[in-house]
Amino acid sequence: MVQAAWQLKAEKCRKVLQDSLNPAWLLPASELPPPDHLNVADFPDKCTLLEPRELEITKKNGVDLLAEMAAGTLTAVETTTAFLKRAHIGHQLLNFATEFLVEDALARAVELDAYYKSTGRLVGPLHGLPISVKEHVAIKDHICHSCYIAWTDNVATEDALLVKLLRNAGAVIHVRTNAPQSLMHIDCDNVIYGPTVNPHNRKLTPGGSSGGEGASLGFRCAVLGVGTDIGGSVRVPAAFCGAYGLRTTALRNPYKGVVLAGDGQESIRCVISPLANSIADINLFQKAILDQEPWEEETSLVPLPWKQAPPAKVDGITVGVIWDDGVVHPHPPVSRGLRRAVEKLKAAGVKVVDFEPYEHARGWDILAALYFPDAAKLQKDILAEGGEPVAPLTTWAFNYARPEPLTVAENWELNVRREAYRADYHRVMKERGVDFILCPAYLGVASELATGQYWLYTAIWNILDQPCVAFPTGLKAEPSIDVVEADYQPRSTDDEREYKKYVPSKFTDAPISLQLVGKHFRDEDTVAAADLVSKIVQG
Amino acid sequence: MVQAAWQLKAEKCRKVLQDSLNPAWLLPASELPPPDHLNVADFPDKCTLLEPRELEITKKNGVDLLAEMAAGTLTAVETTTAFLKRAHIGHQLLNFATEFLVEDALARAVELDAYYKSTGRLVGPLHGLPISVKEHVAIKDHICHSCYIAWTDNVATEDALLVKLLRNAGAVIHVRTNAPQSLMHIDCDNVIYGPTVNPHNRKLTPGGSSGGEGASLGFRCAVLGVGTDIGGSVRVPAAFCGAYGLRTTALRNPYKGVVLAGDGQESIRCVISPLANSIADINLFQKAILDQEPWEEETSLVPLPWKQAPPAKVDGITVGVIWDDGVVHPHPPVSRGLRRAVEKLKAAGVKVVDFEPYEHARGWDILAALYFPDAAKLQKDILAEGGEPVAPLTTWAFNYARPEPLTVAENWELNVRREAYRADYHRVMKERGVDFILCPAYLGVASELATGQYWLYTAIWNILDQPCVAFPTGLKAEPSIDVVEADYQPRSTDDEREYKKYVPSKFTDAPISLQLVGKHFRDEDTVAAADLVSKIVQG
Repeated sequence: MVQAAWQLKAEKCRKVLQDSLNPAWLLPASELPPPDHLNVADFPDKCTLLEPRELEITKKNGVDLLAEMAAGTLTAVETTTAFLKRAHIGHQLLNFATEFLVEDALARAVELDAYYKSTGRLVGPLHGLPISVKEHVAIKDHICHSCYIAWTDNVATEDALLVKLLRNAGAVIHVRTNAPQSLMHIDCDNVIYGPTVNPHNRKLTPGGSSGGEGASLGFRCAVLGVGTDIGGSVRVPAAFCGAYGLRTTALRNPYKGVVLAGDGQESIRCVISPLANSIADINLFQKAILDQEPWEEETSLVPLPWKQAPPAKVDGITVGVIWDDGVVHPHPPVSRGLRRAVEKLKAAGVKVVDFEPYEHARGWDILAALYFPDAAKLQKDILAEGGEPVAPLTTWAFNYARPEPLTVAENWELNVRREAYRADYHRVMKERGVDFILCPAYLGVASELATGQYWLYTAIWNILDQPCVAFPTGLKAEPSIDVVEADYQPRSTDDEREYKKYVPSKFTDAPISLQLVGKHFRDEDTVAAADLVSKIVQG
Repeated sequence: MVQAAWQLKAEKCRKVLQDSLNPAWLLPASELPPPDHLNVADFPDKCTLLEPRELEITKKNGVDLLAEMAAGTLTAVETTTAFLKRAHIGHQLLNFATEFLVEDALARAVELDAYYKSTGRLVGPLHGLPISVKEHVAIKDHICHSCYIAWTDNVATEDALLVKLLRNAGAVIHVRTNAPQSLMHIDCDNVIYGPTVNPHNRKLTPGGSSGGEGASLGFRCAVLGVGTDIGGSVRVPAAFCGAYGLRTTALRNPYKGVVLAGDGQESIRCVISPLANSIADINLFQKAILDQEPWEEETSLVPLPWKQAPPAKVDGITVGVIWDDGVVHPHPPVSRGLRRAVEKLKAAGVKVVDFEPYEHARGWDILAALYFPDAAKLQKDILAEGGEPVAPLTTWAFNYARPEPLTVAENWELNVRREAYRADYHRVMKERGVDFILCPAYLGVASELATGQYWLYTAIWNILDQPCVAFPTGLKAEPSIDVVEADYQPRSTDDEREYKKYVPSKFTDAPISLQLVGKHFRDEDTVAAADLVSKIVQG
């Protein structure tokens, strides 16, 4: 049968991926776990590929690796090799990569080691740290298609600004990662690479849209990851995969060079920000980037350095808890995680109060209209140009849009409503004396493949432009404990649809994660509070 | 003859103005200068209304008045009375006010004095300083029509946020000021109040759109003034009237409560900012406002306090000079003022270099399309609703718009072009080693009534979102010196139209002003540099 043109283009991209793998680091099928082995998070401990020393390296966080490299007890080549090898295993199990950068990464690591050897100093604050990067963040001379077939001939002429700054800081970019069609799913599947799956339960999605990043960090294929977030696309994958994910306030991190349909849409800004395996590494990333004053090149950014916030204190913060957003009720494991977190925080002496969510449905009404003010015509045209089949989740997302394109004046009106909602929410937080909000990062622990339809637990903070950190509680979904609430009465069709998706046995081993939300532009304070809160919750 | 409905509404507003005047402070017609007496700037010195002490008070700047009030040698009532009386004369001569707030102002002054008397302290950093406010900035319980007949029943339910903060700081709001129809003229005429004129030459406009503010500060009717600027509307009137005018970077000063058609239009933001008679007073104003953290209420603002910038040093800055924007050639008095300024700066040891303007026509192409993305439908509808005659300058401004409304996607494309232009301009300034740009604030010293059509000398910095200060050079247009350049060849029809407007005798006594431009978000540094530069230029 003759392949359609779109299939040939998809094939070309898959070949790029295939050719980028180092065959020596791939395990034979016989050594891989069988498909019904769902939780593969600890597979690297059992397989033969990683040397004990490599295994040890990949279990460390960035700040510790950096300290060793500064002390000369670890090289960038060792570090890069270890993470590249682990990422190869990860890819075999999870299908998370769109392209490996083996040669570039190792060449850079060699340079870094040479620099250290000759000067005794590190190149920069991210010296030798392997970082995975979401596919639509431009890498010079590489295809950057944003998961659109129509864009598969788009070769980036320069690195995205954030990538440049990461490289300046000594980071090693070693793998590019998968994302969903349209980049507007909390799932991670497209016609080129197929679905990425969750390291803790391969029947579940790693989340999205930065799903490849979720898998990358959840499987420790990288020290840090670069994702983008316009509705939860960093935090959802971090939460589903048991990693940490930051959404900064807009206009702080350099966004230039992110390839996304709808450039110039400023009503709801997409942000670029890190995933990590510790809060300390998130801080490290942010400081390394903002110390380079990206606003000197990307002038739309606000020139705010990344201040070193003082550590948050147990008796210095008030945390408001959103148990349920009033629209869609959380699944039992998430509610259990939240209950347990609140108990621990209270026991530790943190002031915790219930926080009635402030009109989240109002926020969604504005946000949904602003995601695709042109009735998603731009995206639909790109999909049509590529000729690729359109996934149901893509259609689902496009249907958030009003049926007809907004006029410019209607867009203005929504901007006004957005500003009023932001100001109201800020006022309400102040009136209630709440510094931070603790809430679910998603209604459940994760979703099954191709089923995620409700993002408002994260997206509400996108319309509010408040900084948030998703973090793991250390707990996992357990079917025997997290039983369906027998008496739960759905409050709406949306609520019913989502609650019905909760079948305890399907979510075994999925990490229970939460989200800590701070105030607009208080990113540093939010990260500092997330450090305190996550440690207490995990303790 | 029966009056049209719009005339009745205009009449109602004029009655509000008329009733707000204190008849005791109005001079009989016989004591007013005749209409052909054009320069009335020093009339207060000659007339009988102001006592010598009052005259003295109105000649002082804010920081000095404040020092006297802090020392107890001057009261707020004396200060307010003096400026109210001078403003009455000013209104008789210039028609600059839309409403006096005599009772409110004096009542507030009494309160301030009582507070000082009982505590020995000032209420705040603007204690007792009379401030004039452009009409479309809301004052609680007063009509706020933005010069639209259709809006003449719009009574503000609360003060604009900036007004609240001014009052908190101890300021006395004593007069509201005129603006042009549509607020998109660099002129100051509308069907309600008629034209405001320039204190230095009453055949000239005070500029616009904050023209009433220009006249207010130029005639010293107020210590500080509040204007708004989306294309030069603060700087043009300041320049035409010999005052100082700041345009801040967007999202620094609180804008909430400004009544303007097109709320939610964010592609080119209108800013609210001060006019003054000294740079020190501009600093005083900015610090008084931003010290109150307006971002806690207006959450779209960037939370950047007004830092006290170190004084700029003669050998610490490089100033690039734009002699001509490459689109429309300046008139001879402006070129003379600029030449003289450069000579003085060089003589003082400041590094001054020529700065070839970077693609200003490109900037205008983007900006003109973004002023009215809806083809000015909103404004046209409001004018039609009011039934008022549409002024030629209004039609002129609306014709900047493309004939058909932009789609949302076309608006995005222009946003992208705007961002690219901003980044390019910033890069060019850095490559050329230029910290600040010195340039005309307008192609001429002022324009005759109802003739101003070219704003790009100011508007280019609106699309670039760079902070600027307009300031007087201390020179005035002199027909005998500022002769028409005999050999000047117009470069375009726009250029020819504007150059033909220069008839030396028409501009006698108009102040020659200039504009100093800084980098995006470097507002404090720009004000500090303007302090140094203006003092050298005036020295």
